[in-house]
Amino acid sequence: MAPSQTPGSNSLKRRGLMFVLSSPSGAGKTTIARRLLAEDDEIAMSVSVTTRPMRPGEVEGRDYQFADRARFDAMVEANEFLEWAEVFGNCYGTPKAQIKAGLREGQDFLFDIDWQGTQQLYQRMETDVVRVFLLPPSIEELEQRLRGRGTDSEEVIEGRMARAKAEISHWDGYDYVVINDDVEACFGKVRAILDAERLRRARQTGLVDFARNLMR
Amino acid sequence: MAPSQTPGSNSLKRRGLMFVLSSPSGAGKTTIARRLLAEDDEIAMSVSVTTRPMRPGEVEGRDYQFADRARFDAMVEANEFLEWAEVFGNCYGTPKAQIKAGLREGQDFLFDIDWQGTQQLYQRMETDVVRVFLLPPSIEELEQRLRGRGTDSEEVIEGRMARAKAEISHWDGYDYVVINDDVEACFGKVRAILDAERLRRARQTGLVDFARNLMR
Repeated sequence: MAPSQTPGSNSLKRRGLMFVLSSPSGAGKTTIARRLLAEDDEIAMSVSVTTRPMRPGEVEGRDYQFADRARFDAMVEANEFLEWAEVFGNCYGTPKAQIKAGLREGQDFLFDIDWQGTQQLYQRMETDVVRVFLLPPSIEELEQRLRGRGTDSEEVIEGRMARAKAEISHWDGYDYVVINDDVEACFGKVRAILDAERLRRARQTGLVDFARNLMR
Repeated sequence: MAPSQTPGSNSLKRRGLMFVLSSPSGAGKTTIARRLLAEDDEIAMSVSVTTRPMRPGEVEGRDYQFADRARFDAMVEANEFLEWAEVFGNCYGTPKAQIKAGLREGQDFLFDIDWQGTQQLYQRMETDVVRVFLLPPSIEELEQRLRGRGTDSEEVIEGRMARAKAEISHWDGYDYVVINDDVEACFGKVRAILDAERLRRARQTGLVDFARNLMR
C-alpha cells in the first residue's frame, strides 16, 4: 500500500476497517459512497459474490464474483460469508477470506448494506466495523426524492415511503448518524468519521514499535 | 447555544463531550489546543479550581477559580472534583457540577491534562470522555524541541527527556493517537476526531424525536 496522504491517517502501519453506510433509499447514500471511493485510495468496495446473472458491462471479480446457486449454498454451508442475503430471488454475500486478508494489509472496505447485513457484519467483526447511518433532513424532502420524475403511481410511491420508514426505524443500531441536508456538508462529516476512525489507537498496529523507539 | 455550523455537527440537540488532549511536553499540544479553542465556539476550556496564587493578568473565574487549601481540601472531601492533582505543591481540580451542567447543554470541554488526570476523568465519566494522545514524530525532534533556546544545562534537558518518555509510556491508555509531524496536518486530524465524535449516535440526544418525525 502507498503511504497515506489523507488527513485522517498517520503514516504508521494500521489495520483496515469496515466502513458501513446505510440509509433509506432517497437519503443520498450512493452519491456519498461514490465520492469516497473516488477520492480515497485506501478504501475500496468489497466485491460480493452473487447468484444473479451478469449484466452488460459488468466484469467478473470487479463488480461481483458470479456464482451459481449450488456454489453459493456451498459457501453458506462452509461459513465463507461475513454476511449474506437473498433479495428478489438473488443471493448476495460478502466473502470472509478476501476481507480478512485486506484488513491485515491496511485496506479499508466500504459496505453499502441494510441494517440486517450490518448486524451480521457487526456480530462477526465487531471492532473492525464502523457503522454510519444517513438520514434525510425531513419527511417532505424524502418523499420528494422518492417521487423522482413523477411518473410513478401513488401506490408505488407509498410502497417506497413505507420501506424507507422501515429502514429508518433501525437508526439506533449505528455508531454514527449523519443528516444529509446538504451533500457537501454530509460528505465532510462522513469523511471526518472515516479519518477519525483510522486514528483509533487500536487500529494503528505500528504504534507499538513507534512508541518503543521514542522511549529508547 | 448557537446552532452548530461546524462540519462535525448535525443541528440537532446533543450532549457535550470531554475532549482530552495529552502529550509529552514538546509534542505541540498547546498550539493545537489554542487553535481548537479559537476556531470552534462549541468547545471551551474547563475552568479549574487551583490553590496557587493568582498571577498578574489572570482573572478569577476565567483562568481559574482560586481557592485556599482548606477550601480545596473540603471540595476533595465532598467529592466535588472529577479529577484533581497536586503539582509542585499547588492543587488543581476540575469541578464536577460545572462540567455536568455544560454537557447537558451541549457544551464541549477541552482538557489539557496528563495520563493520571485522564484516568480519573475516564473512571467517572466514561462515555463522555474522548481521549487523544499526541506523539512527536521522532526522538530527535522531541529532543530538539525540549532543548529550546539552548541555554539550559544538559542535566535539565535530560530531566525533561526522562519526563517526556515517562509520559509517552502511557500512549496505550488513549482512544486516538496522532503523530504531530506537521502542525497543519496534526490539527486537521484532531479536528476530524472532534467532528466525528460529535456525530456519535449516543451523543445526539435530539435524534429520538427527529427519527420519530421522519416515521410519522
